[in-house]
Amino acid sequence: MNQIVFPFGGAAPSTSPAATDPAVVGGKGAGLAAMAAIGLPVPPGFTIASSTCATFLADSAFPETLRHDVTSGLAFIEEVAGKIFGNKDNPLLLSVRSGARASMPGMMDSVLNLGLNDATVLGLAESSGDPRFAWDSYRRFIQIYGDVVLGIDRGLFEEALEIAKEDNGFVADVDMGSQDWQALVGEYKRIVEEESDQSFPQDVHEQLWGAIGAVCHSWNSDRALTFRRLNAIPAEWGTAITVQAMVFGNRGPDSATGVAFTRDPKSGEKALFGEFLANAQGEDVVSGMRTPSYLSQAARERSGAREASLEEAMPEAFAELQRLAGVIEAHFRDMQDIEFTVEQGRLWLLQARSGKRGVKAALRIAVDMVDEGLIDEREAICRIDPMALDQLLHPTLDPEAPRDVLARGLPASPGAATGRIVLDSEEAERRSELGEAVILVRSETSPEDIAGMHAARGILTARGGMTSHAAVVARGMGRVCVSGASALVIDLARRVARIGTRELPEGTIITLDGTRGEVIAGAVPTIEPELVGDFATVMAWADRHRRMAVRVNAETPEDCRTARQFGAEGVGLCRTEHMFFDHARIAIVRRMILAEDPRQRRAALDLLLPQQREDFRGIFEAMAGLPVTIRLLDPPLQEFLPRGEADFSELSDAIGVGIDRLKRRASELRENNPILGHRGCRLGISFPEIYEMQARAVLEAGCAIAAAGGEPAVPELLIPFISGAREVTLLRERIERVAQEVFAESGRSIPYSVGAMIELPRAVLEAGAIAGEAGFITFGTNDLTQTTLGIARDDSARFLGRYVEQGIYRLDPFVTIDQAGVGELVRLAVERACAVKPGMLLGVCGEHGGDPASIGFFEELGLDYVSASPYRIPIARLAAAQASINLVSSRLG
Amino acid sequence: MNQIVFPFGGAAPSTSPAATDPAVVGGKGAGLAAMAAIGLPVPPGFTIASSTCATFLADSAFPETLRHDVTSGLAFIEEVAGKIFGNKDNPLLLSVRSGARASMPGMMDSVLNLGLNDATVLGLAESSGDPRFAWDSYRRFIQIYGDVVLGIDRGLFEEALEIAKEDNGFVADVDMGSQDWQALVGEYKRIVEEESDQSFPQDVHEQLWGAIGAVCHSWNSDRALTFRRLNAIPAEWGTAITVQAMVFGNRGPDSATGVAFTRDPKSGEKALFGEFLANAQGEDVVSGMRTPSYLSQAARERSGAREASLEEAMPEAFAELQRLAGVIEAHFRDMQDIEFTVEQGRLWLLQARSGKRGVKAALRIAVDMVDEGLIDEREAICRIDPMALDQLLHPTLDPEAPRDVLARGLPASPGAATGRIVLDSEEAERRSELGEAVILVRSETSPEDIAGMHAARGILTARGGMTSHAAVVARGMGRVCVSGASALVIDLARRVARIGTRELPEGTIITLDGTRGEVIAGAVPTIEPELVGDFATVMAWADRHRRMAVRVNAETPEDCRTARQFGAEGVGLCRTEHMFFDHARIAIVRRMILAEDPRQRRAALDLLLPQQREDFRGIFEAMAGLPVTIRLLDPPLQEFLPRGEADFSELSDAIGVGIDRLKRRASELRENNPILGHRGCRLGISFPEIYEMQARAVLEAGCAIAAAGGEPAVPELLIPFISGAREVTLLRERIERVAQEVFAESGRSIPYSVGAMIELPRAVLEAGAIAGEAGFITFGTNDLTQTTLGIARDDSARFLGRYVEQGIYRLDPFVTIDQAGVGELVRLAVERACAVKPGMLLGVCGEHGGDPASIGFFEELGLDYVSASPYRIPIARLAAAQASINLVSSRLG
Repeated sequence: MNQIVFPFGGAAPSTSPAATDPAVVGGKGAGLAAMAAIGLPVPPGFTIASSTCATFLADSAFPETLRHDVTSGLAFIEEVAGKIFGNKDNPLLLSVRSGARASMPGMMDSVLNLGLNDATVLGLAESSGDPRFAWDSYRRFIQIYGDVVLGIDRGLFEEALEIAKEDNGFVADVDMGSQDWQALVGEYKRIVEEESDQSFPQDVHEQLWGAIGAVCHSWNSDRALTFRRLNAIPAEWGTAITVQAMVFGNRGPDSATGVAFTRDPKSGEKALFGEFLANAQGEDVVSGMRTPSYLSQAARERSGAREASLEEAMPEAFAELQRLAGVIEAHFRDMQDIEFTVEQGRLWLLQARSGKRGVKAALRIAVDMVDEGLIDEREAICRIDPMALDQLLHPTLDPEAPRDVLARGLPASPGAATGRIVLDSEEAERRSELGEAVILVRSETSPEDIAGMHAARGILTARGGMTSHAAVVARGMGRVCVSGASALVIDLARRVARIGTRELPEGTIITLDGTRGEVIAGAVPTIEPELVGDFATVMAWADRHRRMAVRVNAETPEDCRTARQFGAEGVGLCRTEHMFFDHARIAIVRRMILAEDPRQRRAALDLLLPQQREDFRGIFEAMAGLPVTIRLLDPPLQEFLPRGEADFSELSDAIGVGIDRLKRRASELRENNPILGHRGCRLGISFPEIYEMQARAVLEAGCAIAAAGGEPAVPELLIPFISGAREVTLLRERIERVAQEVFAESGRSIPYSVGAMIELPRAVLEAGAIAGEAGFITFGTNDLTQTTLGIARDDSARFLGRYVEQGIYRLDPFVTIDQAGVGELVRLAVERACAVKPGMLLGVCGEHGGDPASIGFFEELGLDYVSASPYRIPIARLAAAQASINLVSSRLG
Repeated sequence: MNQIVFPFGGAAPSTSPAATDPAVVGGKGAGLAAMAAIGLPVPPGFTIASSTCATFLADSAFPETLRHDVTSGLAFIEEVAGKIFGNKDNPLLLSVRSGARASMPGMMDSVLNLGLNDATVLGLAESSGDPRFAWDSYRRFIQIYGDVVLGIDRGLFEEALEIAKEDNGFVADVDMGSQDWQALVGEYKRIVEEESDQSFPQDVHEQLWGAIGAVCHSWNSDRALTFRRLNAIPAEWGTAITVQAMVFGNRGPDSATGVAFTRDPKSGEKALFGEFLANAQGEDVVSGMRTPSYLSQAARERSGAREASLEEAMPEAFAELQRLAGVIEAHFRDMQDIEFTVEQGRLWLLQARSGKRGVKAALRIAVDMVDEGLIDEREAICRIDPMALDQLLHPTLDPEAPRDVLARGLPASPGAATGRIVLDSEEAERRSELGEAVILVRSETSPEDIAGMHAARGILTARGGMTSHAAVVARGMGRVCVSGASALVIDLARRVARIGTRELPEGTIITLDGTRGEVIAGAVPTIEPELVGDFATVMAWADRHRRMAVRVNAETPEDCRTARQFGAEGVGLCRTEHMFFDHARIAIVRRMILAEDPRQRRAALDLLLPQQREDFRGIFEAMAGLPVTIRLLDPPLQEFLPRGEADFSELSDAIGVGIDRLKRRASELRENNPILGHRGCRLGISFPEIYEMQARAVLEAGCAIAAAGGEPAVPELLIPFISGAREVTLLRERIERVAQEVFAESGRSIPYSVGAMIELPRAVLEAGAIAGEAGFITFGTNDLTQTTLGIARDDSARFLGRYVEQGIYRLDPFVTIDQAGVGELVRLAVERACAVKPGMLLGVCGEHGGDPASIGFFEELGLDYVSASPYRIPIARLAAAQASINLVSSRLG
């Protein structure tokens, strides 16, 4: 029988490896156990394994042994804490908190101050000598329990508190005295009775099991589901549950609660960074309801704030925090995000986890830690989220450009974003789906805003600090964020944001500078990023440690040049059809398509030839010396057809064929399922003259560069959409004939090869025979996903979201390769191809070539390269390095 | 080095197995070698292997050793025949004939009388003592060589002959004397020189190699390509070439040539059957230019013909032919089609092959031969072409119905067909594609008419006998044919067929009775076939020898009853969507589809429930006691959408929702690639209430029958278009909940199961996990073919024909399963499913379930059943028996 309850703190039994394994006890449980094990001040507690939650959600029942294990765990806490759960004289209070394997800040529920009832509240008042604290804690407990466990609208409790304050003429919570809280407890209990048809539970064990069940269920709350979908967290993980003795930051002026980062999460600077609130409980900091103070005097002074820093207010606690931060970072060998509480001068640590950080900070921290000897290059490489690099690759605001600064706030998540103001999440999603760039502007954000934050380019809030919900989530998502812009007032009724006297109706364009914390009117000119410093250092390490080459999917010399700057080592996919949509050319293309015999078609192709040759010449010059994979025409011809009357009459005039005849021919070409239609090499088989023209253009371009003394790229002609070896043979032979002609005409030859694109299941099965006929193979995983799963990507939105939510697919298979299906086919094709032609060139050119998770899989298969869009090249380089490192260590381990 | 030239006849070296293997030397070469080996009178010759032709067509060059082998072969023939090739005193003449592995009558070319030139013709005249014969043979040779080898329009030669006859005032060829033929030879040589810019070749070796090359090339003639496509003959086989000493049926009144069947190819009766022409060469019989006479006196008398039969004209030759026919049939253990020539009283055999026969004859011959002890049941079963049974299963003309007989001809291919007159093949194809039934009416048919004959229901000719091109091809294709209806005159200019004084414009409906040889005005009432006699005997044998069960694809009680009569053992696929298209129901269905929330959808489904229940009740009663697989709703919902304005306004009135809103919702549902769209179990996941309704209808119907004391069918609910195991789990659990409800409500339960339809490559890969969740698995090979090959069937005509012609696919993958691709996936799925759940029920319900070649493959995989459309049931039963027998013998052998 596996252990499912893991105690920690005090004289806890020596920890098993499972006790500090986030896969077993979640991130929070693992961090607490690890800190306790090295003697740090952690209140005693125990963690229930996340597998238990998963079982509970599946079977609607806890394992039979759990009740016994929890009882033992409680006894352990009681012994260490010297208090007794439910005892009216010396009551033990507990927190019940969630903690998944991956951090999901604010997505699930917690219950604090558990163990209070009408009897123990008196005991707590007595033992603490602080009745106000006791009654405040009790009303907090009823409120959170009512919300989380009993499902009562928390607004009812907040309203009751507001009324109580108004009735008493109070402004803030601190004005409330012991009697006031006690009265409010009565009111809260009335609300519970009215809303849930039961009185507030007085049995502390009933409280505990209710909380455990509710925290389990919060794994499947709407916001947790959304977060998991956005972050590719599998549903089957479940959340662990940590039950821990309460410590109190609200025990008076010598108490406090706060959050500390061991390094600055925006810049990466090595200095304690964070915020605290005096005389408060942790939820007060995170919720952003009160604006917290700085930890260090230096930070306070730098920002010009007046409230005393922790360093000034509680110098001993601050010194101890600074010392322990160093110990913790050295232990975990990474920048840590620490929750702490000072209870009557004594420092307690309530959580430590790897701190979220912006990508610039991540790069700096990684490079610094290598310099400090804390980690090696490999570990540094693996510390950077490849997708986060995206933020560095795009233009930033031009520092020389004039700025009409509307307001200042906190620089909560760096970068710059321009977009139209939207005032709620629904509007953010709606406009973003229409292709508009939007900035989500809110008083403060809550977990319900998660989808809108994802849809927005940037987030602006009127309230909340650097560790408020908006700030933490925005940094995690790589969204620009300015928080706490206190001049901002939002009028939802009139759909207007107001800053001072300026009114900004929803839809107004603004720019956020998340690095400086500025809100700027209109759009601001941008400058290209410089790929230097820590970025360049880490990328150089990555190149040293990766095995796979990284190529680019590109069709223009401009994209090729950008991609070379980003480190592309060739073109993995040049989609020639993109060259055909050019307005000057489409009429010739249509003439070719609508030709009724090969002679007419050839005449149109003769007009296209010199233009295609110039296309390739530009690309081959840009990619001098590197391989360039040219995919021959692939899409169904109908994609090029005239669409409206104007198109038809223009074409009719241009080529002198009647409109009716053109329309008839066009309708003959239309297909009901073009993805499965007359496309790819089927066009090459049906209309050989098209591929002949393209092969001629490619080879003539190469010869022309060579003739002019230049070094051309090495063309690799790619035959798309093959279903078997014979298509490759027939078309390769045709291309070889064209090559012989071109080389004879130009009096010189250049190296080239002809390869096959595997994107159909049948081609996978025939991969051995195909390898025998092809110079190289590249996997078109987009189409392979469409055919293997039977899903047309562009129409898949109708059901794919639901499929991922219900766990039918773990992830969106068009973003990350479906390993169980599509991935297995790629593996099979690789095996069969290599059996026939060991060491042949194998690559991937679908969208998955730029997806880090998929890149890891391609490394396992031993592919030679991945190909990705230009701005994904650094991401792919880093991901490829991580994949190599992980594969090596998994093989060693 | 493999042997590529195989001599036969006379004292030929003892034959290797290859010499009588049709796969090596073609059907003709194998038959000649086999006959020669048992001492029958076969002129000496040799056969060049078909692989040589395939090599030649691929490389444009013969193997190096061939020239030497042919020289040896010639020497052998010269020795046996006692004549010398090219010798002017005693010249050897040769025939050069094609012969593929499968019979392709008239599809390829032959060259006869080869070896004649200006010198040898004199020697032949001298040695034969018959100058007329010598000059006639020479002009025949120039004509056929000019046509086949030099590519000269044969009409030019025929025209020259007509002019010569006219100039001399002759009526028939027999009027031409030696001088006349000699003069015509001069004219023919002039035509050759004018058309080919070269004089007619006088070097006999040049003649021989020219003929061998041309016969090779005729493998790829248009008509051969068409025939191969229609008969699924692979391009890579190639044709063998037989070079043989000529014997002459045109050596005077004691010479003849003819064709004999060892049994009657229409009725199967055991009696020598056939035709001959006195003083003629073989081509005269086959071409249908002269109307031949009967072989036996009895046949002549029965038909009322006056020309003497062979039995009467040459009694000794007839007796010898009859004796040898018995020897040949006993040797080959099948009914034979024999070509013979009588040269000056001496009988020679020029070909023996299994005779084509109508399906009734095939059944009778098979049953008779078992009775005669010639073959056993297994062999008898394997002798019947399953597809040919189709002719017996359809209605025939009511013998009691009045008939307006327009004309009588020969009963060339049995059965009855009604359709509109078409006068050429193009028109036959055009109208048939529009869905019209057509009768092709021609003076006579030629190989160029093959596509038109295939498109027609029946063929009517004015000329030609029972072994004319029209008759042979029609019997092979299973088309009704009346040949030699001499009262028929065709006026192509006016597009009218005339019979006596009656004019029948193209498009007029007529009926052919191919069994009686009648042409009838208008349509004639039909009666259902009686499945008794030889048919029933053979089917009973088949049932005894097959392993796989045969089910039907059916959606109505009527189809179920028909299928049970045909021997169906259950329903393998009941497509519930077919029930939704009913006019009375479509409005409710549309209401369901266009519902904007589950409540509206459920309201519409509540209306459908009682109707679906009645659908299933009818089917379950018809299939009492048998399994019935009900596929839950599968197609994209858009298939049910209103299409025109009328549909929309009708629906709008019916359900009180505005037209604009309906149109908006309809356009939301439209997909660009519906095959890969929101369909199958994706509907079940998105709109659970649809499958719940269907499951309820199924189970309530079963319970209702049981409650009424009846025996219901055993429902198997089939979940379509699954891509993985989790879909099965989710939907099965939902169905099980419905079942519990229904059983609780009705107070009884019935057995049922829930299974998975594997029709996506991903489901194949997950077949193991799916097997764990499903009660049974059935393969939807239509969709599996579409996704594996990336081809939408309904649009595939654009390129699929070309793909088959070029050998990219061997066969149309939608007719016969693509073993290398789709077949391998089915095999993989079977392996994975059986590894998890050995012995689980596995079936096939795609169109391939009724295709004999595919059925053979499914037998190899060990599937439990195939499912086919009602009229394919007997075909599937027979094919399944053949598959079992072949598998057993291949495992033994």
